[in-house]
Amino acid sequence: MIEPLVSPRPIAPSQPVDARRSGREELALYAGSIALAAIVKRSGTPLFVLDPDRIAERFAYFGELLPFARLRYALAALPHPAVIRTIAAAGGGFDVVSTGELAMLAHEEVPASAAVYSHPIKRPAAIAAAAAAGVRLFVADNPAEVRKFLGVDASVRLLIRVHFDGDGASFGVDAAHAMNLARFAVNNGIRVAGFSVHVDADRMSPRRLEQVLRETLRLIDEGNARWRLGADTLDLGGGLPAEHEAGDARLRALAAAAARVLEPRAPALTVLAALGRCVAAPAMLLATRVVGQATRDGAVWHYLDDGMHGSFAGLRDAASAPAMFSLRELLEPGDVPPPALYPCTVAGASTDGLDVIARDLPLPSLGIDDVLLCPNLGAYSLVLASNFEAVRRTRVHVLHSRRAAQRSGAVDAL
Amino acid sequence: MIEPLVSPRPIAPSQPVDARRSGREELALYAGSIALAAIVKRSGTPLFVLDPDRIAERFAYFGELLPFARLRYALAALPHPAVIRTIAAAGGGFDVVSTGELAMLAHEEVPASAAVYSHPIKRPAAIAAAAAAGVRLFVADNPAEVRKFLGVDASVRLLIRVHFDGDGASFGVDAAHAMNLARFAVNNGIRVAGFSVHVDADRMSPRRLEQVLRETLRLIDEGNARWRLGADTLDLGGGLPAEHEAGDARLRALAAAAARVLEPRAPALTVLAALGRCVAAPAMLLATRVVGQATRDGAVWHYLDDGMHGSFAGLRDAASAPAMFSLRELLEPGDVPPPALYPCTVAGASTDGLDVIARDLPLPSLGIDDVLLCPNLGAYSLVLASNFEAVRRTRVHVLHSRRAAQRSGAVDAL
Repeated sequence: MIEPLVSPRPIAPSQPVDARRSGREELALYAGSIALAAIVKRSGTPLFVLDPDRIAERFAYFGELLPFARLRYALAALPHPAVIRTIAAAGGGFDVVSTGELAMLAHEEVPASAAVYSHPIKRPAAIAAAAAAGVRLFVADNPAEVRKFLGVDASVRLLIRVHFDGDGASFGVDAAHAMNLARFAVNNGIRVAGFSVHVDADRMSPRRLEQVLRETLRLIDEGNARWRLGADTLDLGGGLPAEHEAGDARLRALAAAAARVLEPRAPALTVLAALGRCVAAPAMLLATRVVGQATRDGAVWHYLDDGMHGSFAGLRDAASAPAMFSLRELLEPGDVPPPALYPCTVAGASTDGLDVIARDLPLPSLGIDDVLLCPNLGAYSLVLASNFEAVRRTRVHVLHSRRAAQRSGAVDAL
Repeated sequence: MIEPLVSPRPIAPSQPVDARRSGREELALYAGSIALAAIVKRSGTPLFVLDPDRIAERFAYFGELLPFARLRYALAALPHPAVIRTIAAAGGGFDVVSTGELAMLAHEEVPASAAVYSHPIKRPAAIAAAAAAGVRLFVADNPAEVRKFLGVDASVRLLIRVHFDGDGASFGVDAAHAMNLARFAVNNGIRVAGFSVHVDADRMSPRRLEQVLRETLRLIDEGNARWRLGADTLDLGGGLPAEHEAGDARLRALAAAAARVLEPRAPALTVLAALGRCVAAPAMLLATRVVGQATRDGAVWHYLDDGMHGSFAGLRDAASAPAMFSLRELLEPGDVPPPALYPCTVAGASTDGLDVIARDLPLPSLGIDDVLLCPNLGAYSLVLASNFEAVRRTRVHVLHSRRAAQRSGAVDAL
């Protein structure tokens, strides 16, 4: 009498399913090492599990990859106190874009001198407050913004943000006008530290990065020789890729390109690099639960207790389905073969018809109350969530750092 | 030396500019009546200005339009205490989708019996809590969900949510299986109140609405005659259009179609209708300030102190530019001709390159610190905002109700 639950045929093993298998093994090992099942049982769902050690490891990895650069953590990706403390303990600097982010640093007793204020557009009151707190490096990209620094503390310096391929871009002065803007600042008694250029990991090839960095260096050199800018800093900006599998091939190629241009200039040149997504993403996973199931037009739908208005909000821009594993499949002994996978629609917690997380996602057989785990969800997840439909944002469970005892150190003042 | 600010040619008067002119006159009158300039001066920006009288007016208007229906306000659009109090005072019911929304009603001392819990997917704990609080009407659309009502208070009744054109829809049992689902409930001792169908204002013609309502009535009649459902309720769901200009032609046509089918059945049939966007949208305007300006690729950019991660978050789905007026142009005496308009790019407060609110929007000449006003921003704005980049959500200034003294009344228990 009731429409039977359709039993779709399992997905045949294929490339993406093989990739899922290795991801599953990695996650199963990790879940065991942090006793994830017990955490979820104790704290319920939805739940983020944040691992400060992964922040530290990832930050150290970038230190090896970019030994010529002073690394800053860009708070926007995941401005969590535990992350701030971990970066500070590792000697990292910070990249902030708002008064609120500066307040978070102050709350963790990180000196403002460790931060670059990188938002190119600021209210004068925000500049005054940041300068008074001790920020010494700001970013600007247009004359109206440079004028806001007239009369600000004379030890403050500007990085001029430049773009080289920026048709329709929201920020950056085009390279042809960058020198004019730097000269405008200096002629008005505002100091220029150098130039800032953003790596757009999605679009920039290593070869193009090399060109762009050479052109930025040329701006610094010409500015110093011809216009007495006194520039000593090149800011690589943010935007490095987040992937951390397969040897980070793309990331390594970008880093090598930067090294070819910038290492020969050390130590006379200060190179800055902001890390956001690439440090935060692998440090947090989401545990979410199946709370409802239905068969619609022959497709199996799983409804979760989190969604596109919550912890998956970052997917709206990324347009790619997240990896999902059931806690139950991870708890199987290692010698049990992987479960059969079925194509499913996974929907979020709200009544919004657009709150669909993924369609045709391969998942094992699931029941109501099964817990799903989504790794690599540390960046642009929590921070983009709203309280839509009066649902609270997902809580964060912070793992005890297994390394904290070994770490100490001052914060790198930029 | 500095790149000159481009002076684009004013936009020639045309149809959209004429529409802007009438909108400007209406807003200027309204701004004068509520002393908007003084509010903005006192409270700063960004600021929402919420007018409970507009909620009451709009709710009363729908009462005239749908005299055969009991109206519920769907909290999801704008779950503000002042809105809840206004609807309750007008005798309206409520449509809730979460434990959090029920708590907001309780906080305003609205009895839970005035609410329909319309989310088709719920955790058993949410059902138990809502039933214990006094909710008597719930929505379900699949067998797994109906089963969750086994053992719940016997006075609780279900609305079966149906869809008639729902390929790929996230909710609703297709019409061919709706009777089976209702019988499954009744056979298990769970009472069925009737059927629920959502008006999709963007896609549904009045003619199609009429068909859909006739089919829903047929489900009720056949269910009662053949399967002893005991159904007495047809739920129109939400989704009515929000426009309120030009006599609401589309809205009136939909209401007339519903009346043709449903009025002949009064008073033996309880008709419910949920109002969200259409009540909330016109009741709130946003005041936001120009904090930065730049010329990029020949286009003038205005950067605001609010944006797509804040109060404009609802635009992400709507994909239409909001109307924007400068406070300065509204304060001009009525006999001053409208200002020349220029095409501008309007960008938000974050460093996200996707945070562009509108391109080629016709705006008068603006300077830094000019305040822009965006009317009709009451629905799906505040509720979709995040705290991205540690920026607080926009505050809400609630106008004193000029009508409150005349209003009183009990809440309509559904």
